[in-house]
Amino acid sequence: MGKDIATREEDYSQWYTDLVIKGSLADYSAVRGCMVIKPYGYALWENMRDVLDRMFKDTGHQNAYFPLFVPKSLFEAEEKNAEGFAKECAVVTHYRLKSDPDRPGKLMVDPEAKLEEELVVRPTSEAIIWNTYKGWIQSYRDLPILVNQWANVVRWEMRTRLFLRTAEFLWQEGHTAHATSAEAIAETKQMLEVYADFAENWMAVPVIKGVKTPNERFAGAEDTYCIEAMMQDGKALQAGTSHFLGQNFAKAFDVKFSDKENKLDYVWATSWGVSTRLIGALVMAHSDDDGLILPPKIAPIQVVIVPIYKGEEQKLQLDERVHAIVKGLKALGISVKYDDSDNQRPGWKFAEYELKGVPVRLAIGARDLANNVVEVARRDTKEKQSVSLDGIEQYIKNLLEEIQQNIYNRAKAFQQDHISKADTWDEFVALLDTKGGFISAHWDGTSETEDKIKELAKATIRCIPLNNPLEDGKCIFTGNPSTQRVLFARAY
Amino acid sequence: MGKDIATREEDYSQWYTDLVIKGSLADYSAVRGCMVIKPYGYALWENMRDVLDRMFKDTGHQNAYFPLFVPKSLFEAEEKNAEGFAKECAVVTHYRLKSDPDRPGKLMVDPEAKLEEELVVRPTSEAIIWNTYKGWIQSYRDLPILVNQWANVVRWEMRTRLFLRTAEFLWQEGHTAHATSAEAIAETKQMLEVYADFAENWMAVPVIKGVKTPNERFAGAEDTYCIEAMMQDGKALQAGTSHFLGQNFAKAFDVKFSDKENKLDYVWATSWGVSTRLIGALVMAHSDDDGLILPPKIAPIQVVIVPIYKGEEQKLQLDERVHAIVKGLKALGISVKYDDSDNQRPGWKFAEYELKGVPVRLAIGARDLANNVVEVARRDTKEKQSVSLDGIEQYIKNLLEEIQQNIYNRAKAFQQDHISKADTWDEFVALLDTKGGFISAHWDGTSETEDKIKELAKATIRCIPLNNPLEDGKCIFTGNPSTQRVLFARAY
Repeated sequence: MGKDIATREEDYSQWYTDLVIKGSLADYSAVRGCMVIKPYGYALWENMRDVLDRMFKDTGHQNAYFPLFVPKSLFEAEEKNAEGFAKECAVVTHYRLKSDPDRPGKLMVDPEAKLEEELVVRPTSEAIIWNTYKGWIQSYRDLPILVNQWANVVRWEMRTRLFLRTAEFLWQEGHTAHATSAEAIAETKQMLEVYADFAENWMAVPVIKGVKTPNERFAGAEDTYCIEAMMQDGKALQAGTSHFLGQNFAKAFDVKFSDKENKLDYVWATSWGVSTRLIGALVMAHSDDDGLILPPKIAPIQVVIVPIYKGEEQKLQLDERVHAIVKGLKALGISVKYDDSDNQRPGWKFAEYELKGVPVRLAIGARDLANNVVEVARRDTKEKQSVSLDGIEQYIKNLLEEIQQNIYNRAKAFQQDHISKADTWDEFVALLDTKGGFISAHWDGTSETEDKIKELAKATIRCIPLNNPLEDGKCIFTGNPSTQRVLFARAY
Repeated sequence: MGKDIATREEDYSQWYTDLVIKGSLADYSAVRGCMVIKPYGYALWENMRDVLDRMFKDTGHQNAYFPLFVPKSLFEAEEKNAEGFAKECAVVTHYRLKSDPDRPGKLMVDPEAKLEEELVVRPTSEAIIWNTYKGWIQSYRDLPILVNQWANVVRWEMRTRLFLRTAEFLWQEGHTAHATSAEAIAETKQMLEVYADFAENWMAVPVIKGVKTPNERFAGAEDTYCIEAMMQDGKALQAGTSHFLGQNFAKAFDVKFSDKENKLDYVWATSWGVSTRLIGALVMAHSDDDGLILPPKIAPIQVVIVPIYKGEEQKLQLDERVHAIVKGLKALGISVKYDDSDNQRPGWKFAEYELKGVPVRLAIGARDLANNVVEVARRDTKEKQSVSLDGIEQYIKNLLEEIQQNIYNRAKAFQQDHISKADTWDEFVALLDTKGGFISAHWDGTSETEDKIKELAKATIRCIPLNNPLEDGKCIFTGNPSTQRVLFARAY
């Protein structure tokens, strides 16, 4: 019964892929590195997008839409940004196909339709957006600009994984313009808080907020803030980033404003984004060997009801009662599916919704109806209980909140248990090889040491946590003096 | 005062462009044929999208997401579709840039990163989707598939116009799969009705529902249904299409299902779409020489309130009363903006919101407050009236409904007035050259005649209206016998 999925212990990576594919979130596609987001996965993304979109609007942002393509000359204007993304750029060079004279009915690229200037498919939109902002900004009165875009972007990755790293992915990218450095930094930090709030209170994924080292910064940023999550295999996952871009893009695109004293200055910028990668984080943070476990607050289906009956008469009796429950749940804002399809048996349905991570399952049969009860199964703990039908709607509403809290607590306990201190190189490597997780360790602050550690231990500095306590120590690798611990991990 | 826009009489085309750009809907971009949708324009699109999305879900559809790129070999599989779009395809040929040795700091396409197979940027997604459906469909139990996608597509148009025809545009494309021809045809017609409902009852744009002639069909379709709107310059605009694709794509991608009797057959398909082009239709259907006129039901701002005051004390008094009005309006689900910015004078604001097409403007000063009244100006008729503040919220709610109805009625009257009959070629051409509009005329039913008429009169058959009455007559061009009139027009 149910679909065959690998266990985490057997093959963690296969387990993840099985959950994504067999849990109906996504599929591979015919295009290298690109995926198809299936209806169930897309419904999850829609819920996540809608919550984030509300948060963005509540913090004063508006949505807009900028072109998919970036002319090469614009793309290369901010040199660090261009250099950082050059190796991953899909490039449009032609604008027409024509009949292939050698293969009847087939097409070829028309060599006469070569673009004068190649177009980069956006890997990120700073260039095209700052080139646009140039036309929108003259004076301090035009600032701030608080704009977000929901879009697809393309980064030609060599090794892809469903949701976690795909050539094309869906995301949002905020791009704001400010009159002062302080305001831009405040915006950068505000959006980091929005992301952390979303990750913890909606996705139930605890995160560590921090700032990246120069090595790990976004290409073209002065500072990159991030939220880092911990997966069940002890690897870290960067779940969102917020960048203070200084005046780099304003200088590259010559975007100046006149302030109240009529002095000209370059505009200050931020950008920030999260993507469908969050779905990967969600899957790996909560799920178990029986399938997905989705947080109730963003689950596409929060409650599924499976009827158990023999014959049409029993079915009709159940229908009547269940329709009332469905109505009651919907009135409480709960999304519910009554699966009375007759082409699968209840046991098959149980396994299916377990696999899909539906938080609460109700099963109800004729005897339950007679006893005025229903069997309530929660996905997170797999506990089943017979519950009175009186007040069942409120019971379920409370239960959903409890499940949301429980899976957060579980993930939080796991995260806390996977932050270890290491004071020697041997300890550091041993921790990485056995337990994994975040390793809090001293580092001498140089990019060289960071590179060496990455090379030898396959671990990167995930972040310097916000409000990190100062502490004298010695770098685990070089023994040089250090003033604070930073968080290392192997990462997705 | 206000921004300088062309009048319709002076230069209709410039008037349209002025409204789009100065009304803050969109901007040109650095990419040939691509536009930037500005926050105000995008908010309008979000409202339209949300209503349509609800309609699609209410008719049983789910959203999903498919790749942006289509490998050339898939793209060319359905030959008619491929042939129809080949001339407009942006093609990705390389996946990497590298430093240009001849231009320090600049980039060039890396010739070593040439794709083995070129990727077409989707101009429409039938190919990639039907290639995916092949993996989803085995039996009649897997049908129907009712999927929609919100996405960007690219068609390399030589002559572009903001919203109406851009190289990249945003749209939705529904792609459904069915076990029978009848079911697919019913779906095609259902979605046409959804589009007509949306156009008429939300956009306030009356449309004629019909079917295209074979010449004007979507490439790869068996039948194309459409809604056709009439613009103020007498030109028609195709506002949405719904295609019955027969088994063409199923055959091209070998998508078969076993029916209840276990017989294998090809799957039946539909596709249907509307795009950001609808915004162009909206602008041209309702607006006047002072700016946009937006239908209240989808306007980003339904009501704007402008305070008129001298000194801080008056301002504070107004604020208190206005905040109560704002709260009352929001409680009725009305979107309202209180523009109390002090860097522009009231007259400037009046012109600005007129230009932006905000349906209702309230202006309130100290004397109004003393008299317990407010000046209410409606954008559609430009009438102003002093209205009691008692019950002002309900008054405005009713007024918004009245405006919605009024602009629909106005557009409907215009449309009706622009459907003319022509029985001779001279009459036909004279009507096109003077009044424009739809010309109802006999046609001999041949593709040749249709082509000739298009060549000589620059008019196309917009559609054969649904439930078209049969009527014996003679083709206006050839004089050959005809059984029904069809609708011709010059079109966008």
